[in-house]
Amino acid sequence: MAETVEHKTYPLEHLHEFCKRVFMSFGVPEDDAVTAADVLQASDARGIDSHGVARMYAYHGMLKLGRINPKPTIRIVRETPSTAMVDGDNGLGLVVGPRANAIAMDKAEAVGSGWVSVSNTNHYGIAGYYPLQALERDLIGWSMTNTSALVTPLWGAERMLGTNPIAIAFPGLEEPPIVIDMATSAVPFGKIEIARRLRRSIPEGWAIDAEGRMSTDPEAVIQGGALLPLGMDRDHGGHKGYCLSAMVDILCCVLSGANWGPFAPPFAPAFAAGLSVPEAQVGKGIGHFFGALQIAGFIDPETFKRQIDAWIRRFRATRPAPGTDGPLIPGDPEREAEAVRRRHGVPLPMPVVEDLRRISRDTGVPFD
Amino acid sequence: MAETVEHKTYPLEHLHEFCKRVFMSFGVPEDDAVTAADVLQASDARGIDSHGVARMYAYHGMLKLGRINPKPTIRIVRETPSTAMVDGDNGLGLVVGPRANAIAMDKAEAVGSGWVSVSNTNHYGIAGYYPLQALERDLIGWSMTNTSALVTPLWGAERMLGTNPIAIAFPGLEEPPIVIDMATSAVPFGKIEIARRLRRSIPEGWAIDAEGRMSTDPEAVIQGGALLPLGMDRDHGGHKGYCLSAMVDILCCVLSGANWGPFAPPFAPAFAAGLSVPEAQVGKGIGHFFGALQIAGFIDPETFKRQIDAWIRRFRATRPAPGTDGPLIPGDPEREAEAVRRRHGVPLPMPVVEDLRRISRDTGVPFD
Repeated sequence: MAETVEHKTYPLEHLHEFCKRVFMSFGVPEDDAVTAADVLQASDARGIDSHGVARMYAYHGMLKLGRINPKPTIRIVRETPSTAMVDGDNGLGLVVGPRANAIAMDKAEAVGSGWVSVSNTNHYGIAGYYPLQALERDLIGWSMTNTSALVTPLWGAERMLGTNPIAIAFPGLEEPPIVIDMATSAVPFGKIEIARRLRRSIPEGWAIDAEGRMSTDPEAVIQGGALLPLGMDRDHGGHKGYCLSAMVDILCCVLSGANWGPFAPPFAPAFAAGLSVPEAQVGKGIGHFFGALQIAGFIDPETFKRQIDAWIRRFRATRPAPGTDGPLIPGDPEREAEAVRRRHGVPLPMPVVEDLRRISRDTGVPFD
Repeated sequence: MAETVEHKTYPLEHLHEFCKRVFMSFGVPEDDAVTAADVLQASDARGIDSHGVARMYAYHGMLKLGRINPKPTIRIVRETPSTAMVDGDNGLGLVVGPRANAIAMDKAEAVGSGWVSVSNTNHYGIAGYYPLQALERDLIGWSMTNTSALVTPLWGAERMLGTNPIAIAFPGLEEPPIVIDMATSAVPFGKIEIARRLRRSIPEGWAIDAEGRMSTDPEAVIQGGALLPLGMDRDHGGHKGYCLSAMVDILCCVLSGANWGPFAPPFAPAFAAGLSVPEAQVGKGIGHFFGALQIAGFIDPETFKRQIDAWIRRFRATRPAPGTDGPLIPGDPEREAEAVRRRHGVPLPMPVVEDLRRISRDTGVPFD
C-alpha cells in the first residue's frame, strides 16, 4: 500500500540541530535536548518515519500547552542493587527514557542485571533506541512502553491497550547485531490512517469497527473501532498478542505506578485517531520498563558473539519460501535504511515539512 | 475441532504417584522424582493435556535409552549477584528447570532480580509452572525454553525454531493471578496431528507444506512442512512471531551454550512429527531461561496487587465483541480446568492410558 506524496530531503544533522534547538526554546537544558534529538534521529535514520521528526508537532504541542515538564527532576523512588522505580516528573519521554535506561545499564554492569520501571513519563520514541545503547556496553538491553489505548483485547470491542512495543538486541562479533523492535498489535495505527487517505480497504485481521466486528473499512476503525492484537483471532493466536500487550502494560505501568490500559493519557497524535481523554487517572503519566543483562554474567562475551554470528549465518541460509528471498534477520530493514539515510538524508513528506515550518515560525528556530 | 475419543478418569494424586515411582525406577532420587511429578501434575491439573502424563511415554523412552541422566550434578558455571549460567548435566528438564528457577528466585530475593540461563537440559514441562512458583514468593517469574524445531521463520520453508514458549505471572490481592503461558507459533503442533487423525483441513495461516507454501492439508505439514510463527504472514505480523521465537532461542540457548534453532536435539514425540536428528551440535542439550523480579524492588507489593485487582476488574468489564462473553484474563481457562480436575480427576484419552499401562508393565510400577 504505497503512498505517493511529494518529499523534501534533509541531512540527519540538520534535523538533529533543529529538534535540539526547538526543545531548548522551551527551556529544555542543552544536554537533555541533545539526548531527545538523538532518540528522534535514531528513528529517522532507521527508517521508522512515524517516530522521528514527524512527531515534533506533538512534542511541540505538548510543550507549548505546558503538558510536559521541560526541566524534570528525574528521581529513583525505590531501588535494590538490580532494580529501581523511577519517577520521570512528567518530563519528555525522550529524556526520561535514556536516563532510566542508563540506570538499568549501570546496575547490570555492577551486579549482572538491571531492571527499571518508570512512571510519570511521556512517549519515549522508538523502543529499539534503548537496546542499541546497551549494545555499546556489551549488554543485552530490553525496552517496553505503554502507549495510548488503540487495541482491543481478543473478544473485546473497546480500545483497552496501547500498541505496547517490545525491543531487545543481541550483539554479533563480525555480523551486525540482531535488533528486535515490535509492536504487539497486528499493525500500527498509521497503516489504518494511510488506507483511509488512499480510500483503500484494509486486510481482514487488522482491526474491528465500533461494534467489535472485524472490519476492512479504515473509516469504521477510526470512528470508534480498534486495532486487533497480534494473532488477530482465536484460531490464529489473537489471545497471545493480547497476553504480550498485557505483559508490557503491567511491567511498564502497574509495576511503576503509571496509568495502565485504557487510562493511558493521550499523546497528541492520538487525538487524530479520535481518542478521547480517559475518564480517570489510576497513576502518573505513562510507563516504561527497561532491562539490561550483562552477557559476561552468563557466558564469555566473545563466545556469545561468535554463536550469534553462527545463528545469523544459519538463519540467512534458511530455504526461502516461494516468491521470497528468504527470512530476514531482525534489524535488517532498519540497518539498510540507515546506510542510505546517513548518506543521502531523510526524505520527509511535505505535510511533515509543513509541520516543521510551522514549529519554526512559532519558536523562531530556523528550519529551511 | 473437537475430537471424540474414549476417556478414563484418574485422580491427580494417582497420576502423581505413578510418575514419581516411574522416575524412581530409573534411579531418579526421590526428591527429584517428586519435583518432576509436580511439574507434570501442574500441567494435567491446568488442562494442558499435551504436557502432563501424556508425555510420560517420552520421558520413559528417553530414560530407558539412557538419553537422559537420572542423577545429574546440576551446577552453576558462571554467576554474578543477579545472574547465573547453569549446566543441567543432561538431567530431566523437570528437575533441572525447577532447580534453576529456584536460583533465579533466590537471587531476586537477595538483590532484586535473578536471571538464569540453562544449557545441557531437556524438556521442562509447561512454561507456566515456573512463574507459578515465583508467585508463592511474591516475585514476578518468567520462563522460556527452546524446543525441537518445528516452526519456520517468516519467508522460510524450513523448520528452524521451536514453538519456544514465554510465561510470566503477576499476583493479585483478592483476584487470582494473571498467568501468561504462550507458545510463539500460531498453534502447537498437536493441533496439526489432531486434524490429520480427524481427516480435517486446517485453517490458512497455521502452517506451510514442504515447499514453503501455506497449506490447509495437515498431512502436507507433517510430511516436511512447518508451523508458521504467530502472526502467520507479513501483512498480519508473522515477522513479529518470528522475532519473539528468535528472542527465546537466543536467551535460552546462545546465552547458555545450548543447541539453538534447528540444532535443538529432538524430544521423543518430535519423532512422530517426522523430525530428523539435527546434523550437528552447536552446544549442549536444549536451553531454558528463567527470571524473577522482586515486586518490592519497584513498588509496595500491596499497592501492586491492588492495581492488578483493578486491572483485572477493568479488563473483565471490557465491552464484549459480538458473539462472545468478552475478553478473558490470562490464566482463566487453566484455573477453571484446575477447579474441575482437582475435584473430579483428569480424563485421559485411552491411547494415553495404554501408554501408561505399557510403562507400568515395563517398569513394574502399578498403574491400574
